[in-house]
Amino acid sequence: MSSTSDIDALIELMARLPGLGPRSARRAVLHLVRKRAQLLAPLADAMQLVAETARECLNCGNVGTSEICDICASEKRATGEICVVEDVADLWAMERARVFQGRYHVLGGTLSALDAVGPEDLRIPRLIDRVESEGIREVILALNATVDGQTTAHYIADRLAGRVRLTSLAQGVPIGGELDYLDDGTISAALRARKDV
Amino acid sequence: MSSTSDIDALIELMARLPGLGPRSARRAVLHLVRKRAQLLAPLADAMQLVAETARECLNCGNVGTSEICDICASEKRATGEICVVEDVADLWAMERARVFQGRYHVLGGTLSALDAVGPEDLRIPRLIDRVESEGIREVILALNATVDGQTTAHYIADRLAGRVRLTSLAQGVPIGGELDYLDDGTISAALRARKDV
Repeated sequence: MSSTSDIDALIELMARLPGLGPRSARRAVLHLVRKRAQLLAPLADAMQLVAETARECLNCGNVGTSEICDICASEKRATGEICVVEDVADLWAMERARVFQGRYHVLGGTLSALDAVGPEDLRIPRLIDRVESEGIREVILALNATVDGQTTAHYIADRLAGRVRLTSLAQGVPIGGELDYLDDGTISAALRARKDV
Repeated sequence: MSSTSDIDALIELMARLPGLGPRSARRAVLHLVRKRAQLLAPLADAMQLVAETARECLNCGNVGTSEICDICASEKRATGEICVVEDVADLWAMERARVFQGRYHVLGGTLSALDAVGPEDLRIPRLIDRVESEGIREVILALNATVDGQTTAHYIADRLAGRVRLTSLAQGVPIGGELDYLDDGTISAALRARKDV
């Protein structure tokens, strides 16, 4: 590599981002070097800022820049509903859909016997606390439809049974989805949950 | 989006990198936020450093951190050969192959009547100067095999004809390439340039 070591070091760090490999990291860094003033310097500043300020919300586990995230801090979102998600990425996906008005609880993973992840390793005790302290009426389990996700949903449902209304996201044909491309499990779930027109 | 504006701003900047879109930028930023200490802070520092120090070599146009790049500064590379490339990415690709011992000249693009790019917009005058001042014996035209690349190669060959040995990279079947997947142009170039075994 002909570039000097600073640039090489940057390429090596960029290649550790998900979705970038050595080749695309080189391309990205070359682009950054060409656009030093417009892109590289602002990006360095933005990263510095986030590195200093980003933190997990003490209440729900969302990522933000304060001890309590914007959603937990907003009185408008105190609807008595908590949507339980595995991951901050899932929370962001829900927020992009702009349909849920309540608050979230980010577990930070799923229960997994194989990886020795128990309830104490996730934010499950904190969820139980919140249901009491925030006067929650409904817990929406928006966990992924994987084996571990569903195991975790069952565990949480057991722990909260009788204390609160428990719901999960509907399963069925995605909007714009074509039957031909759907897996058998989705089609049979959609058929079982069929609705009158 | 639930994340606060600093994180959104970072996502927006990351999405402007080549090869990343809004979705992969979100994923990358989430990964960075999770690995604040190990990845985000070092990356911010590396970007800051490159933003401050990166510059184009005054001699050849390579990207580095000093006025004259490492290759131009190295006496070992004064072999009397200059390899002319369109782009710093092409220079990096040549260097990775570790076969060329001489110096480079990065044009910074190709001549293009459509985009009104003339010889003065590229580093062509500087190339002519270097051929004289550095006592160059051979100029290797390693331009891309596109119409604009070949037009530029012809123009440079005209300007330097008689002063120096002019060569271009061999065209043919790539190492590991399968005939079935090659375009007609490559196959006919490889056949025309066939060699005795």
